[in-house]
Amino acid sequence: MASITIKDIAKMCGVGVTTVSRAINNHPDISEETKAMIMQVIKDNHYVPNNSARNLKRSVSKTIAVLIKGITNPFFNPMIQVFEREIQRKKYSFILQRVDEKQDEIEVAIELEKEKRLKGIVFLGGYFSHSKEKLDQLTVPFVLSTIGMTEEFDPNDYSSVSVDDVKESYKIVDYLCNEGHRKIAIITAPMDDVSIGKLRYEGYKKALKQHGIEYNERLVRPMREDIDSYSMENGYEVTKELLQSGEEFTAIYAVSDSLAIGACKAIFEAGLSVPEDYSVVGFDGLDISFYYNPSITTIKQPTEEIAQETIKILFDLIDKKITHAHKTFPGELVIRNSTKRLN
Amino acid sequence: MASITIKDIAKMCGVGVTTVSRAINNHPDISEETKAMIMQVIKDNHYVPNNSARNLKRSVSKTIAVLIKGITNPFFNPMIQVFEREIQRKKYSFILQRVDEKQDEIEVAIELEKEKRLKGIVFLGGYFSHSKEKLDQLTVPFVLSTIGMTEEFDPNDYSSVSVDDVKESYKIVDYLCNEGHRKIAIITAPMDDVSIGKLRYEGYKKALKQHGIEYNERLVRPMREDIDSYSMENGYEVTKELLQSGEEFTAIYAVSDSLAIGACKAIFEAGLSVPEDYSVVGFDGLDISFYYNPSITTIKQPTEEIAQETIKILFDLIDKKITHAHKTFPGELVIRNSTKRLN
Repeated sequence: MASITIKDIAKMCGVGVTTVSRAINNHPDISEETKAMIMQVIKDNHYVPNNSARNLKRSVSKTIAVLIKGITNPFFNPMIQVFEREIQRKKYSFILQRVDEKQDEIEVAIELEKEKRLKGIVFLGGYFSHSKEKLDQLTVPFVLSTIGMTEEFDPNDYSSVSVDDVKESYKIVDYLCNEGHRKIAIITAPMDDVSIGKLRYEGYKKALKQHGIEYNERLVRPMREDIDSYSMENGYEVTKELLQSGEEFTAIYAVSDSLAIGACKAIFEAGLSVPEDYSVVGFDGLDISFYYNPSITTIKQPTEEIAQETIKILFDLIDKKITHAHKTFPGELVIRNSTKRLN
Repeated sequence: MASITIKDIAKMCGVGVTTVSRAINNHPDISEETKAMIMQVIKDNHYVPNNSARNLKRSVSKTIAVLIKGITNPFFNPMIQVFEREIQRKKYSFILQRVDEKQDEIEVAIELEKEKRLKGIVFLGGYFSHSKEKLDQLTVPFVLSTIGMTEEFDPNDYSSVSVDDVKESYKIVDYLCNEGHRKIAIITAPMDDVSIGKLRYEGYKKALKQHGIEYNERLVRPMREDIDSYSMENGYEVTKELLQSGEEFTAIYAVSDSLAIGACKAIFEAGLSVPEDYSVVGFDGLDISFYYNPSITTIKQPTEEIAQETIKILFDLIDKKITHAHKTFPGELVIRNSTKRLN
């Protein structure tokens, strides 16, 4: 079908081409009323602006990529929504790139940088154990969002936004201890992993120590490496093994809500119940932690605020207002029905 | 840092530049062993191939976009994984574009076509009520995946892959009827919506009719439009209203598993239980339908097969092997613990 031009639209609206252009580009020098009228005519006539300068600007030089490690984690969903909205509001285009658990996200980022001429990168979730040399290969600004970093990294070399995983983890294990639990199993990351799972494990050890509880390594259960990490299935399989081991415990701390749900399922299948036989706590504050039966006691992360701050820092880096920044948000201990007080 | 070139890599490996190029491009004329050795050296040295022809080819002309309608639906997660793998296997690059519920996906697609010079498009989920004129504006091949289409569309105008939503929906309501339920509420799409929700509602009506059950419109509960559609929250709020209405019923058919979980939560909060007081069934076969307590009776969609077939048809269209295709997969009725037989 014949293409409609910007001139056709201007004619139909009874305005000049410049006014149509202003409406399309959200220019301040146009009334909301005129803009709404023009946008309606554009919509009714299926007109798609194809000013080449505009396309060039949007497609070639103004793209932000968000790289997500691990695909099955619903924790990222509300964050992606915020990223998308904020990036588009800045008139940048937005690429969502999922990184396989076995892939190297820096390699993926370097490849994307060349192909899409990125202006900035958000790394979301997952392990992050790259060398400084590796990070230095990135030529555009980047922010690590909800990624736990170990102390060996120089904070001057990167920017980050997250909760304090050690502190929040301490908070929920401290809660279990105060409820009288002393035999607390943990489902966490494998020991060779420096991700958030490791940091949450540090918080667990710290809380036990604070309460004078002896550390029992048979209650420390790493996720299985042949199953999606932090997933319901992983929590389910690990808890089945834990129950079969005959090791005594009264509570399970799973370092993600999805793991906690899998743990509950394994307990139900063994003919036992939560919290009567075992208390179970998670981490993250996913919607499902509220809807599950019983609802899951957890640490709620402020995902929207984290996502918004991530984008704010990224644009501050792009605009050279700052050289790096680190922001830590507090989590919230949400006490629900999956835990009980021991007498 | 100084860039490593393909010549450096060839030298380190003791092979020619052509061999390195073959390894990078997955050329068949190179042994797996040599390829593995070269890729290791490339990885160890952080070499990123930047042959401009290759970049041009990948970034400018060989991109497939997957447009997803609605962000919170975990149903799409396993499908995205397959799309990504299959598209990369074909040496195309992959753009994931989320479309807001209020956005027009065809407009988004047309815009993307111009900006990214797409080779093909997958539309995933959501409503699809565009005119033929609208579809004709798309200049590249596309496939509608897990999108219910009404009969007014000419099947020669598009390609599609999905389950038969009417038939599968009939199957699960028929199951409830055979278990003795005659007062079956449904949580479904608003009546002005022609999406899969509408088709599943058709299957519901058909099953009631088949079993000689009178249709009661007070048991037909549309999702709320101010909450994410097909979400747990929507099922929760709609079920709270249903319970408060005082209308009698023995079972709820929620047209997605997420809605079903929300329905269960509302029942628990009213101090009642599933399935003792109310049977609840869903649709989709999400992982959580197995892990929920009680596990949810549902129709399991073969998401991996649907995703694979979608990509197969898309590439057949791109390669001009076919002009259109429609493939329907059977769903599976999975009977779990959220339903009971009435006496």
